[in-house]
Amino acid sequence: TDGSKGWCHSHVKIIRKALSEEKRVSTKTSAADLVTETDHLVEGLIISELQKRFPSHRFIAEEAAAAGAKCVLTPSPTWIVDPIDGTCNFVHRFPTVAVSIGFAVNQELEFGVIYHCTEERLYTGRRGRGAFCNGQRLRVSGETDISKALVLTEIGPKRDPATLKLFLSNMERLLHAKAHGVRVIGSSTLALCHLASGAADAYYQFGLHCWDLAAATVIIREAGGIVMDTSGGPLDLMSCRVVAAGTREMATLIAQALQTINYGRDDEK
Amino acid sequence: TDGSKGWCHSHVKIIRKALSEEKRVSTKTSAADLVTETDHLVEGLIISELQKRFPSHRFIAEEAAAAGAKCVLTPSPTWIVDPIDGTCNFVHRFPTVAVSIGFAVNQELEFGVIYHCTEERLYTGRRGRGAFCNGQRLRVSGETDISKALVLTEIGPKRDPATLKLFLSNMERLLHAKAHGVRVIGSSTLALCHLASGAADAYYQFGLHCWDLAAATVIIREAGGIVMDTSGGPLDLMSCRVVAAGTREMATLIAQALQTINYGRDDEK
Repeated sequence: TDGSKGWCHSHVKIIRKALSEEKRVSTKTSAADLVTETDHLVEGLIISELQKRFPSHRFIAEEAAAAGAKCVLTPSPTWIVDPIDGTCNFVHRFPTVAVSIGFAVNQELEFGVIYHCTEERLYTGRRGRGAFCNGQRLRVSGETDISKALVLTEIGPKRDPATLKLFLSNMERLLHAKAHGVRVIGSSTLALCHLASGAADAYYQFGLHCWDLAAATVIIREAGGIVMDTSGGPLDLMSCRVVAAGTREMATLIAQALQTINYGRDDEK
Repeated sequence: TDGSKGWCHSHVKIIRKALSEEKRVSTKTSAADLVTETDHLVEGLIISELQKRFPSHRFIAEEAAAAGAKCVLTPSPTWIVDPIDGTCNFVHRFPTVAVSIGFAVNQELEFGVIYHCTEERLYTGRRGRGAFCNGQRLRVSGETDISKALVLTEIGPKRDPATLKLFLSNMERLLHAKAHGVRVIGSSTLALCHLASGAADAYYQFGLHCWDLAAATVIIREAGGIVMDTSGGPLDLMSCRVVAAGTREMATLIAQALQTINYGRDDEK
């Protein structure tokens, strides 16, 4: 973790500097699916440094995937990288932006590192060893009642009519279930870190990707929380949908409240 | 500003300490309209200190209003106080919480101070003298195109069917207008500070109150931005609804896109 903190910081410096500058923005799958030169630059740096140290390891990374690289999780040691989570925030200089790096072996998530670029918070989790933020142990909320829950979600970059309808319908369901509040902060990984730290009780999203989930899943589980499929079944990292909560009761209630759809798979694109 | 920073810090210490503790929570107008002992404690401290210095001044403050005090803005010098903006966040230890203090004379807003309690950011604005965050001048975004905008809004604590329908319908309208993103962070004043700093392009809300708006309105105007009524007409601080943006074009477009209703008035309760 100390090593990762060192080299993570150099990428964060690039991101923080770029946050204050005008950016050239390109779009990917929709007018709201943004990418900048900084996403490409940071992803390239992270992968090239890891490749030097671990030449046999595999990589799944957001911008490589957007460029057509296959996203298949094999039993080989695999790094799952999102160079800038919250790219839309980043483009607008809205200060909720993170770097997320997860690591899996034998298709099992082993550790995750997420860095909040503007607040200098490093979230780490390692299977069996706990989850921490800047050295402080993380612990999820024990809430089991939706009507006392703060719930987080994200719109995501997909904006076809079916996706928007699902997003609005699910927000309506949570509000009708009398959730204390619903928050949309523009970064899935940082929302999931809030969940891990007990600052929120539940999270759900459709249309996110394995690089949004990999590191955060280890951190939440090691903080005592639950990460599952929106159907209520086990998490499928490649299924582009997730429910997470501090307790199994809360996760199950949220999954039951949601309208769910098959959202495609990261490993079938 | 330096003086206000000193005494503001002592209240922020109370809030930060309370953030980490279990809280006794009461409800006001709905099950999602929360208040804690800390809201009352901090409001009492702010008002008693200001009263000592300015015995002839008047006060409009959130918890006093909830307890039945009239919210009428007269020509007298008047402090408009929200001791904890983002109480629902505060209850959940979600770290987006602020103290907001505005000041008006002759029914005109003269200055505003907003303190982000966990990130130690002090936003200040004084009429004719500019707006600042920790000494750095604030400047709004110049964006005029909704399809390139990051838009902020809040659900608010009112949860009757008409309010929820309006909230969801307006979010749908903004998404159909292809806004880059919509964010809901749980603190109106901090959302408005993001707007003042250029990190977002527009903000709208129904069901907020004069203590959410007073300080932020000065800060946004001094950062070059526009604060208006959701009808497109001039801001009415007591009308419980607002559109704010970096440019008049953007504010007008947002007002035109929104479904608007008469939301009652702070000074008729």
